[in-house]
Amino acid sequence: MSQPDEQLAQVYSSQQSFANTRLLDALAHRVVDRTPIWIMRQAGRYLPEYRRVRKQAGSFLTLCKTPELACEVSLQPVERYPLDAAIIFSDILTIPDAMGLGLGFKDNEGPFFEHPIQSDTQIKALRLPAEEDLEYVAHAIRLVHQALGGRIPIIGFSGSPWTLASYMIEGHGKHNFCTVKAMMLDYPDLFNRMLELLAVATGNYLAMQAKAGCACVMIFDSWGGVLNAEQYLKFSLAPMRKTIEVFTEQISNIPVIVFTKGGGAWLEQIADSGCNAIGLDWTVHLGNARDRVGTQVALQGNLDPATLLASAPVLRAEVYKTLDAFGPGTGHIFNLGHGIHQATDPAKVQVLIDAVHDYFS
Amino acid sequence: MSQPDEQLAQVYSSQQSFANTRLLDALAHRVVDRTPIWIMRQAGRYLPEYRRVRKQAGSFLTLCKTPELACEVSLQPVERYPLDAAIIFSDILTIPDAMGLGLGFKDNEGPFFEHPIQSDTQIKALRLPAEEDLEYVAHAIRLVHQALGGRIPIIGFSGSPWTLASYMIEGHGKHNFCTVKAMMLDYPDLFNRMLELLAVATGNYLAMQAKAGCACVMIFDSWGGVLNAEQYLKFSLAPMRKTIEVFTEQISNIPVIVFTKGGGAWLEQIADSGCNAIGLDWTVHLGNARDRVGTQVALQGNLDPATLLASAPVLRAEVYKTLDAFGPGTGHIFNLGHGIHQATDPAKVQVLIDAVHDYFS
Repeated sequence: MSQPDEQLAQVYSSQQSFANTRLLDALAHRVVDRTPIWIMRQAGRYLPEYRRVRKQAGSFLTLCKTPELACEVSLQPVERYPLDAAIIFSDILTIPDAMGLGLGFKDNEGPFFEHPIQSDTQIKALRLPAEEDLEYVAHAIRLVHQALGGRIPIIGFSGSPWTLASYMIEGHGKHNFCTVKAMMLDYPDLFNRMLELLAVATGNYLAMQAKAGCACVMIFDSWGGVLNAEQYLKFSLAPMRKTIEVFTEQISNIPVIVFTKGGGAWLEQIADSGCNAIGLDWTVHLGNARDRVGTQVALQGNLDPATLLASAPVLRAEVYKTLDAFGPGTGHIFNLGHGIHQATDPAKVQVLIDAVHDYFS
Repeated sequence: MSQPDEQLAQVYSSQQSFANTRLLDALAHRVVDRTPIWIMRQAGRYLPEYRRVRKQAGSFLTLCKTPELACEVSLQPVERYPLDAAIIFSDILTIPDAMGLGLGFKDNEGPFFEHPIQSDTQIKALRLPAEEDLEYVAHAIRLVHQALGGRIPIIGFSGSPWTLASYMIEGHGKHNFCTVKAMMLDYPDLFNRMLELLAVATGNYLAMQAKAGCACVMIFDSWGGVLNAEQYLKFSLAPMRKTIEVFTEQISNIPVIVFTKGGGAWLEQIADSGCNAIGLDWTVHLGNARDRVGTQVALQGNLDPATLLASAPVLRAEVYKTLDAFGPGTGHIFNLGHGIHQATDPAKVQVLIDAVHDYFS
């Protein structure tokens, strides 16, 4: 785990400038003409042009691992809509795949690993992934960066250490977390060793993405909300703090967003993790969240993605309610509270974005 | 919907007395020698004797609808373990089934309805179920009541109006709530009409269970946590308040427990619903919950069911942590934060119960 130290001498600082600076302004609590908006999973199955490329690629993983195609689908939503950021098309599980677990995807069942972690020997044998095994992500980011030419910033991302560990131990996403929780409870030291390795791996990985052209990075803690308070702080938030440390040892001036789905009870602690912004799901009231964290961090979210299945006037009203809930002032990035549903009509995304724009006109 | 008014003149009050009064004492904030314990889904698949009867019945629904068999499996856990309450073996979806939606169960996929609600005509045609169509539940309760002979109280239950409506509209449990949420957003008046009918139906149903011999009733709001704050209060909590009103118009002196999975943000509002106790999942810290609701209501929960998959010493330690988190004083019923997992070793349930007993010895 000496990689971050070796790189300490060469801290990278992004010198990028953008035509559209709303995302970075909001993240830094600077005044913006209107709240920036991007959408989790904006490059995805609800778009017909995505489904065409996905079919051409043959498999989801081939799409992720072919930089030209990953670049193409990353650009699709920002070509179709006036979004304030792009996000690189990839998967939260690229790191365990690069560690040799063999990532696969079953139709309608989500991801699985061919070689899940089932013994302490396997945990002790885990090593940081070689950077060349994740180079395809950096390559795709460079292509997107080039294509965008500074129009809008690109967001990089990774799964959180706890979320990666859950998938690596359970072997798939359709689970009740019994296996990983039993391991966490019975072998906390061994489990922490795994989380620490993943924290360094995710920190390095996000740094690689920043160097390739991302101007912001986000940690997706999809499963932090299944833990109790004590466990969340120890096994989800503490490793994320380590991820952020490893990242900021290598990279300066690039903001970090932490999104724990179902983490509404722990906003104060997340705000103290070293992150610049907290992603919120829709069960949290934006105004209350703001009262709790003040201006320590920006807030991103949090419209229920199901709202996009409602009629246009109702959708507009719900967008206005979300913006009202945050209230006037700096530090808000509009987003959904979770990834957009694949059944969403692309025309509704335009309604959503127009509503955000109209609110400030 | 005139049924409750007609029955107003004949308010039923349970005159039952029990050898073991811990559950009812804790619910009333009376001093107990030790915290009572029962377990959500204590009559279920983790027990080999349950699996035997389930196989004999042929289907889950036949088991529910055959009072002798439902009685037999309700008694199994209280014969095996020194639990402080029995809960009638049934399903949260009996009411929509009695309304004619045709409840079924697919192996490993959970419940579904043959005739889900897909139009406003269907909603307008919904009627309160006839009491005889739910008589099999009352029959099973009378059998359990007779068999227990006042040893411990029996808990009756129903799904919450919002949870029932979600299943009725989505048609099954494996969903992202887009259909029911779109309906809630686009047709709030029509949806409220459905919720009000379900509130009366659940209130009547719980009253029927009380009259058949239940000394406590519980509302399972399994899906309240998928709503945002405004929607939760309007579409989940308000109908539950109505359920409790309809129940208490017919029944006095029988406590009501409300359990909203993922409802940790709204404990103050739940405490004001007219319920006597709040069920908590494990993401809520029991001590914090107690600070928030005071002695207005009792609290039930909240060990993560996955803890039963850990080793016995760790399980014992986690039980002690849960009891420590509540702290000394009255008003706690020990339970899991969700139903017990089917993979649980029945010997671990004994460890769990022993740990609760030992804590107070």
